[in-house]
Amino acid sequence: MKEFELIESLRPLLHTNPQTLVGAGDDCAVLDVGIPDRLLLFKTDAVVENVHFTRDAGWERIGRKAISRCLSDIAAMAGVPISALVTLGLPLYFEPDKVKKIYVGLNERAAEFDVSISGGETVKSEKGVFLSISMLGWIPRNRLLLRSNMQVHDAVFVTGELGGSLKEKHLDFSPRIKEAQWLAENFEIHALMDVSDGLAGDLRRLMDASEKGVQLLAEAIPVSRSAKEAAREEGGGSALTRALSDGEDFELLFTVSASIAVELLDKWKIHFPQLNLSCIGKVIPEKIIKLFSRKMGLTNLDCHGYDHFQ
Amino acid sequence: MKEFELIESLRPLLHTNPQTLVGAGDDCAVLDVGIPDRLLLFKTDAVVENVHFTRDAGWERIGRKAISRCLSDIAAMAGVPISALVTLGLPLYFEPDKVKKIYVGLNERAAEFDVSISGGETVKSEKGVFLSISMLGWIPRNRLLLRSNMQVHDAVFVTGELGGSLKEKHLDFSPRIKEAQWLAENFEIHALMDVSDGLAGDLRRLMDASEKGVQLLAEAIPVSRSAKEAAREEGGGSALTRALSDGEDFELLFTVSASIAVELLDKWKIHFPQLNLSCIGKVIPEKIIKLFSRKMGLTNLDCHGYDHFQ
Repeated sequence: MKEFELIESLRPLLHTNPQTLVGAGDDCAVLDVGIPDRLLLFKTDAVVENVHFTRDAGWERIGRKAISRCLSDIAAMAGVPISALVTLGLPLYFEPDKVKKIYVGLNERAAEFDVSISGGETVKSEKGVFLSISMLGWIPRNRLLLRSNMQVHDAVFVTGELGGSLKEKHLDFSPRIKEAQWLAENFEIHALMDVSDGLAGDLRRLMDASEKGVQLLAEAIPVSRSAKEAAREEGGGSALTRALSDGEDFELLFTVSASIAVELLDKWKIHFPQLNLSCIGKVIPEKIIKLFSRKMGLTNLDCHGYDHFQ
Repeated sequence: MKEFELIESLRPLLHTNPQTLVGAGDDCAVLDVGIPDRLLLFKTDAVVENVHFTRDAGWERIGRKAISRCLSDIAAMAGVPISALVTLGLPLYFEPDKVKKIYVGLNERAAEFDVSISGGETVKSEKGVFLSISMLGWIPRNRLLLRSNMQVHDAVFVTGELGGSLKEKHLDFSPRIKEAQWLAENFEIHALMDVSDGLAGDLRRLMDASEKGVQLLAEAIPVSRSAKEAAREEGGGSALTRALSDGEDFELLFTVSASIAVELLDKWKIHFPQLNLSCIGKVIPEKIIKLFSRKMGLTNLDCHGYDHFQ
């Protein structure tokens, strides 16, 4: 059973209450705790040694990655992060100065986005290190950007370049907090999420939530240099396949009405000249991913995103 | 380096912001997120296989224990729980029906205290199962019950019976949510926490936070039947030593002005006839734990609480 199916099968079991507006199934939980003009975002994300990182990356980068992943989920709701808790699982005989390095990396990112590290704990781990981050953030009360709101004919956008993240980027990526806030403040965004498990896999989540499909333009998909290098050096799929299916991109994926797509692209270039924004396709009524390429014409896409349990 | 010292040494490093009223070092973090009459509690707690549980306990009980520990921390601030996220670390080839059982246990407690399970994730674990719970709760804005507010001459109280929890109770204990709320609503509580790492160890935390000491009356300390049995069967210290130093009691430890101690005890017996409340000593100016017993007279206590890293 895959991770996604497992979680889906558990969902009907879970207790809920009126304060919980959005539970399992979107980038963050959304809670109404009585803040007059705001809703609360609540998220947790864990990284595990030899699954999400290896220790040769260096402990500061590992700490930074752990908190950045959670920040990317807050960005996926165009939220403002507030506070984080850190759970650190450590094997016996783990040197205190390594713990300090993890915290230095964590704290650097926390300071960058003004997130308080307001506690947490260390626990013994049977084997290897794990790091679980919980985070709170907020959004304006009237600006709930869910996965379920894609509209037919919407233009589909993605930031940055995709694929090959395991080479470097998965440790050093910048969570798109400011970019997402700018988008939400200046444009009517229909659906928004972060690409963490591969574009194709995450598009499927948007599609499942919105009951719509997407037609992609192959040549418009921003393939990273790392994806090209990995395809050349390691084989196992073309650079495009890697851009579609590699995990850990941590870019923004969103849709807007096609009528504002050009204006959005123009303004984006002025505000974020260092970061690519690509219009990669459009929303269609049929719940499938179609891929149009000049070479191959129109095909149905069957490559999946990354699944930790496969 | 012990867990406590390690965390202490990291604390000055941590980024904070004006919304964070209480960071690392109390039972929960306390945040002011703009709710007119309330403050937010934020807490995380993890359990690890073969550290906090063994799988022969049964997966439902393990799930229940994990969320109950977090609820106990909300109780330790006399808070009302709102919502929880679940991070589940699973080794490869872990059967989905065991995951379901964990959630059944979790969910039972969540429903009992009206906590929404609003998401979370499963991650691969290198070895064994771990479960990390994040929880949100609230307290009235004017009712911050910290560890740092013990007053000289205060009466020191503890609920339930202490010691020997590893026999059974650590899996089945009831978080003292309702009891703590009743206490906070009806009496001026000075300092409050939950006893999770042994009475002696946790008293030291109150003492460190409040810069005061405690004189205990040995005969007043409520020694559980399990502590007595364990002392008889396993040796390794008297039943009293076990009541002082065993971990995972998850009872409430608090202090009030001595002048209201009798009234509090009387009213408690009417409201919670099933649950013992014991006045175990008084707060003294000197920052040590003294133990008075009829047999031994007055001695300084040197037994420590449970430390996961010792």
